[in-house]
Amino acid sequence: MAEPERALTPESLRYNTDGLVAVVAQQYDTGEVLMVAWMDAEAVRRTLASGEVTYWSRSRAEYWRKGATSGNTQRLVELRHDCDGDALLALVDQTGPACHTGTRSCFDPGRRIAGAGAEQPVSGPAQ
Amino acid sequence: MAEPERALTPESLRYNTDGLVAVVAQQYDTGEVLMVAWMDAEAVRRTLASGEVTYWSRSRAEYWRKGATSGNTQRLVELRHDCDGDALLALVDQTGPACHTGTRSCFDPGRRIAGAGAEQPVSGPAQ
Repeated sequence: MAEPERALTPESLRYNTDGLVAVVAQQYDTGEVLMVAWMDAEAVRRTLASGEVTYWSRSRAEYWRKGATSGNTQRLVELRHDCDGDALLALVDQTGPACHTGTRSCFDPGRRIAGAGAEQPVSGPAQ
Repeated sequence: MAEPERALTPESLRYNTDGLVAVVAQQYDTGEVLMVAWMDAEAVRRTLASGEVTYWSRSRAEYWRKGATSGNTQRLVELRHDCDGDALLALVDQTGPACHTGTRSCFDPGRRIAGAGAEQPVSGPAQ
């Protein structure tokens, strides 16, 4: 370890000015990144206490237990924070599609950014 | 596909009120989530044009080509947006540790959130 670290709690994370941290949900066994959403301290507590991942919906301004209506729940396997405590990685077991569009991941491979360089192979034959 | 989608460009992403989108960097071949950082439209353009992942540093208020000083660069393999265009997934090839603390990932396994439920196994013998 490069430096000693103390364990962070739901209360000691570094929330933004809206009281939120970004959360990356990753399927625990395949490594697939499923989605990015937000939690406040209460959502972190609910997630840890229930084992069901619960976000704060910025658009609806309410707690959102993932899959509460769709059935596509996220069972929590492990919740980690990053080095500066302002982002979380939720290792989850996702039932069904994580994305409201019906794709497994919100970062479906079809959703590439279009722009300069995007069409160029990363490594390929010199031209 | 559940709905038709049009390709997003660096200009048509949904930036927050600070002009930023959250970016998840993932090692392209192992699936390891390395870090979460931020890009503005110019950082997205620079990343696509150069193939070297470039963030906007909120603390230093400047562009930050990952590894420019440390040598621990992130070569871009693919850049995807999520379903609502306000988060990015950068599939990268990370040289060395991604984290300034020296760990490979900023979400080092030692950085678990402490709190209710965190010590309980997800599935285990009934007690």
